[in-house]
Amino acid sequence: MKISELLPRLQQNDSLALAKAISLVENRRKDYKRLLDGIYPLPRTALKIGITGAPGSGKSSLIEKLIAGLREQGLNLAVLAVDPSSPLSGGALLGDRLRMIQHSNDPRVFIRSIANRGHLGGLSLSTHEIVDLLQASGKDVIIIETVGVGQSEVDIVNVADVVLMVINPDSGDEIQIFKAGIIEIADIFVVNKSDLAGADNKVAEIRNYFALSDRDPLVFPTSVKEDRGIRELLAGIRRFQETEAGRIRDKAARMKASYIEKIVIERVQEAMRLDPAAAALARGEGEGNPQRAAERILELLKKGGAHDKKN
Amino acid sequence: MKISELLPRLQQNDSLALAKAISLVENRRKDYKRLLDGIYPLPRTALKIGITGAPGSGKSSLIEKLIAGLREQGLNLAVLAVDPSSPLSGGALLGDRLRMIQHSNDPRVFIRSIANRGHLGGLSLSTHEIVDLLQASGKDVIIIETVGVGQSEVDIVNVADVVLMVINPDSGDEIQIFKAGIIEIADIFVVNKSDLAGADNKVAEIRNYFALSDRDPLVFPTSVKEDRGIRELLAGIRRFQETEAGRIRDKAARMKASYIEKIVIERVQEAMRLDPAAAALARGEGEGNPQRAAERILELLKKGGAHDKKN
Repeated sequence: MKISELLPRLQQNDSLALAKAISLVENRRKDYKRLLDGIYPLPRTALKIGITGAPGSGKSSLIEKLIAGLREQGLNLAVLAVDPSSPLSGGALLGDRLRMIQHSNDPRVFIRSIANRGHLGGLSLSTHEIVDLLQASGKDVIIIETVGVGQSEVDIVNVADVVLMVINPDSGDEIQIFKAGIIEIADIFVVNKSDLAGADNKVAEIRNYFALSDRDPLVFPTSVKEDRGIRELLAGIRRFQETEAGRIRDKAARMKASYIEKIVIERVQEAMRLDPAAAALARGEGEGNPQRAAERILELLKKGGAHDKKN
Repeated sequence: MKISELLPRLQQNDSLALAKAISLVENRRKDYKRLLDGIYPLPRTALKIGITGAPGSGKSSLIEKLIAGLREQGLNLAVLAVDPSSPLSGGALLGDRLRMIQHSNDPRVFIRSIANRGHLGGLSLSTHEIVDLLQASGKDVIIIETVGVGQSEVDIVNVADVVLMVINPDSGDEIQIFKAGIIEIADIFVVNKSDLAGADNKVAEIRNYFALSDRDPLVFPTSVKEDRGIRELLAGIRRFQETEAGRIRDKAARMKASYIEKIVIERVQEAMRLDPAAAALARGEGEGNPQRAAERILELLKKGGAHDKKN
């Protein structure tokens, strides 16, 4: 399929074309930038819901319920499961993604798992672009799921309009939940498995955490097992989308800026690797003071051609 | 104190000069680069021990014991406590640092807390430079402590020769301990509070985790309360330093390279902010495709003077 064929089919919500476009972008295949040139002028109106939480918090089965609820509303959906890659344990976390398979035959539910290979420690650049491809295909809602480990969790904020943090009544370690940087990015707290003892306490604990701040947290108890709270959560997400429209817009602007900055940084890193003299300086050769080495590298990159676009 | 006075006093292990030099570098004061020019040619032989672990795992009191043991060996020490900054919870974690105060009158134990303000999510650049200042002052051992939250924990590997991960017999959540990216950076596992029930199990659990890999983990049980295992741990660290000398050297080289790269990136980010046309493109103005916007920014930065060194 050529780019010229891919684009119109993508816009008509053709899953095959979408899957192909994602692979093209994910693997940085020839012409992927031309494809992107074609999608950015398209209208993008999808609500992007980020979902994070520790492994075992029941994110995937909650997402299944959310999918069912959103499908009842006749909406066109995509789920993007982002896997943090770790040399030892990474792959194993992908397993529970397969539970969503009950929706996998529905042409209006596009599901894709991607590995997160961003070498700055956060989401890889292609994650942003894949979300943009999903938007261009005319999805109404895009769910971006990530596992609660490290920087990719914090970075989900860069691609989502609203961030849900899934916790459980029995997640004992407060530090884990309230650890620096994570709680601040959550817009909505979901106390999942609320059929277990301690759900009310957990809700109170979250409210308590914010008691001294000026923020009134949105907290929703849900139970996938007893099918409770899902409708309320979906309504809460919509309400957030309406009442916080200004904040979401500001966030989208910041999101785009940080994404562009990341591309610039990746290009500079690439240029440093490709220029032998810069690479030597980067290895600490010929200049003992790292500050001075950095200055000399920047001079070399300004003179050199490695910054040049390649396609 | 002038730079020319600061340098010789710093080399003579003058704590006042060292404190002043650190402030100069931390706050990016005038002439800090000239100070750095002076320190990089100096010999650096300190063993850098990184210590990480969840809040409450007893890192600080363990460090007190390590300090006492190292002082018995007549060594010259520095402890650098790195605080991850978080808008809501950051400052509070600093409190337990004060417990080390029993050594604070010892002129051979230099203790400093620094906030981590790195805007790439990891350790701030000045952390690397402060470690280099401590090295230049002729310390034999530098202990770098960080709290086990997010990227700063992973980044400690960039400044330490050997990374200790402190866990407890009762740290229930395996996921927390074995979470992606953290366990891989630890060279030595310390099961602290080994007077509590379950210490043997925890040691076995760690060995078990690595059973399928080709790595034989170093695990040391310690009890600050009962003063057990500290000597063995110190001996284990020395043994690691000897047997893994090659690996430590390779790591130091990678460390330096990543540090230089970080400086380059910070400069590029700064240049993007300072060049109005680049800043507009970075905000997504005038170019819808982020890939193309990044290319145009790079062209602007190559032409512009914003890359130029300032002092």
